[in-house]
Amino acid sequence: MSKYWSDITKKIDPYIPGEQPKDKKYIKLNTNENPYPPSEQVIKAIQNAANENLKLYPDPTSERLRDTIADYYSLKKEQVFIGNGSDEILAFSFIGFFNPNEPILIPDITYSFYKVYSNLFNIKYNLISLNNDLSLPIDKFFIPNGGIIFPNPNAPTGRYVPLEFIEEVLNKNKDKVVIVDEAYIDFGGESSVKLIDKYENLLVIQTLSKSRSLAGLRVGFALGQEHLITGLDRIKNSVNSYTTDTLALFGAIEAIKDEEYFQETRRKIIDTRNRVSEELKSIGFNVIDSKTNFVFISHPYIKAEDIFNRLKEKNVLVRYFNQPRIDNFLRVSIGNDEEMNYFIKVIEDIVK
Amino acid sequence: MSKYWSDITKKIDPYIPGEQPKDKKYIKLNTNENPYPPSEQVIKAIQNAANENLKLYPDPTSERLRDTIADYYSLKKEQVFIGNGSDEILAFSFIGFFNPNEPILIPDITYSFYKVYSNLFNIKYNLISLNNDLSLPIDKFFIPNGGIIFPNPNAPTGRYVPLEFIEEVLNKNKDKVVIVDEAYIDFGGESSVKLIDKYENLLVIQTLSKSRSLAGLRVGFALGQEHLITGLDRIKNSVNSYTTDTLALFGAIEAIKDEEYFQETRRKIIDTRNRVSEELKSIGFNVIDSKTNFVFISHPYIKAEDIFNRLKEKNVLVRYFNQPRIDNFLRVSIGNDEEMNYFIKVIEDIVK
Repeated sequence: MSKYWSDITKKIDPYIPGEQPKDKKYIKLNTNENPYPPSEQVIKAIQNAANENLKLYPDPTSERLRDTIADYYSLKKEQVFIGNGSDEILAFSFIGFFNPNEPILIPDITYSFYKVYSNLFNIKYNLISLNNDLSLPIDKFFIPNGGIIFPNPNAPTGRYVPLEFIEEVLNKNKDKVVIVDEAYIDFGGESSVKLIDKYENLLVIQTLSKSRSLAGLRVGFALGQEHLITGLDRIKNSVNSYTTDTLALFGAIEAIKDEEYFQETRRKIIDTRNRVSEELKSIGFNVIDSKTNFVFISHPYIKAEDIFNRLKEKNVLVRYFNQPRIDNFLRVSIGNDEEMNYFIKVIEDIVK
Repeated sequence: MSKYWSDITKKIDPYIPGEQPKDKKYIKLNTNENPYPPSEQVIKAIQNAANENLKLYPDPTSERLRDTIADYYSLKKEQVFIGNGSDEILAFSFIGFFNPNEPILIPDITYSFYKVYSNLFNIKYNLISLNNDLSLPIDKFFIPNGGIIFPNPNAPTGRYVPLEFIEEVLNKNKDKVVIVDEAYIDFGGESSVKLIDKYENLLVIQTLSKSRSLAGLRVGFALGQEHLITGLDRIKNSVNSYTTDTLALFGAIEAIKDEEYFQETRRKIIDTRNRVSEELKSIGFNVIDSKTNFVFISHPYIKAEDIFNRLKEKNVLVRYFNQPRIDNFLRVSIGNDEEMNYFIKVIEDIVK
């Protein structure tokens, strides 16, 4: 701790991303990256954009990318906000829509960055305790609050709620912004995007990091009615006029446009996930029904932490969260078939 | 204004970057972009990095780029912080080192984003009035404060203060962080980097946008003692684990490494600036002595706003700030010789 740090810097508890070890080559099933490469069109677009125009600032309002996403989702450009990964957009949303003294609602088991944002911007929160089966309890979202945020599907549980659930939350909280973080929606869920024109309090956040195989490019987007997008713009323009670089903007356009490749790769991941889920069940694991590119699993007799360590010895990296209620679970990203076959073989040996 | 906006969103007054018009082709001398393309090595590195690894998250701690910058400035890697442009680092610094109720010191005429950050994070500030010649008044930095920030050279004046000035400010404010924003330092000033080991309260911020011709890539960096860098890391890891994408990281390394090209292009810009300054003086302009890639000029008889409009009619875009004390000045970025010859011809006609 330094005397030069602000009070906030002293007090916050920053997020810790999944490890990116450099000591040896792992089968990396710990950060929900996509095992398939980005579309060839993306690579080409970036290579073409790597030219002398990099001397100029990027388009600060990302017009072409917003047009592309708006077309894709049948929205207006004014309903689209572009950010440096969905994490940045989440941060902007916390400061943009939530007030310090009106506690927001966050599931107790969820993406742990939400608490970090709350602490950074001094926003109070109430934790909504998940049901015993780790599903979201709808009635607990009907209490007074300063805003609501949850992922759908939830992370790290992988559980999905249907649009009727979302609509009920929106209807019961008409004066507050409800943020649905859809980082994993493309792996089998139905997006809330279609509710945007009906609900002025809905903000949907998505990312190109997972389903578009572009974690390295840092592009996320938010979708909502124009007044919410304008609010995000105000925050962005008070932090950094140009958050997304020229290369990322050009690459992202092609990622959205290459629908065929997107459908093919997400289908493969869904198929692999379903197969791996069945195989894990057959060797005794509890596997929560997942609509994401990961599975959340526990074993009735062997501790998750032990399995984590033994997998790591065998060069397989998964994610273990040492926190109440889920400290006997492992989150396993869905790799390609070869990687998952090796994973199954190793974990089968461990629980045998 | 939306009822869904937070109190902060309602109250802030976002930054407005220089216009990027699309109606016709301008000679763009309004956003201090570099007229020369980035180094060829940068382009090649980006094209090579556009590969399947974009499916993976970037290195969250930017190890190789930090090593490269540390080597360049004879610092340790732990003294280097990487961000998505220097603007993002400035934003992180405000929340990281300044407290709401301890007013910081900001020059009254300076980079207008500083006030925006203060408002966003609710940090009080006192404006330090520049001297009549628009130089920084050192004694006004000796009053109690919660931190200090100024650019060196200052923007949009272009005025530079020598290291003795910086040292005196650092010595008189040993308990507070002094941020020196060196966005333009490579165009003729001496960097404060050499003071870092002596002053634990000094944070230096630089960018690749101007002198490295990479405004489109969004890379900035901060240099300071390790405890300050750790503070910035805490803020970054509470906002976005990966602020700089893989392509930017690879490109930036080469930009720092290609010293020959860097020296050649910055020399050309300095030479052009000096020539243009003399030519402007010879046709009656007051030209503030500049150590940047722009000149700040006024004319004794013709209003700056009129000159601005007449330049625009002739397809030359410069920056006019409609604010007290400088509303009779124009900021003119230094383009290449051809662009500046045209600019001189046009402005000569205007004042004739």
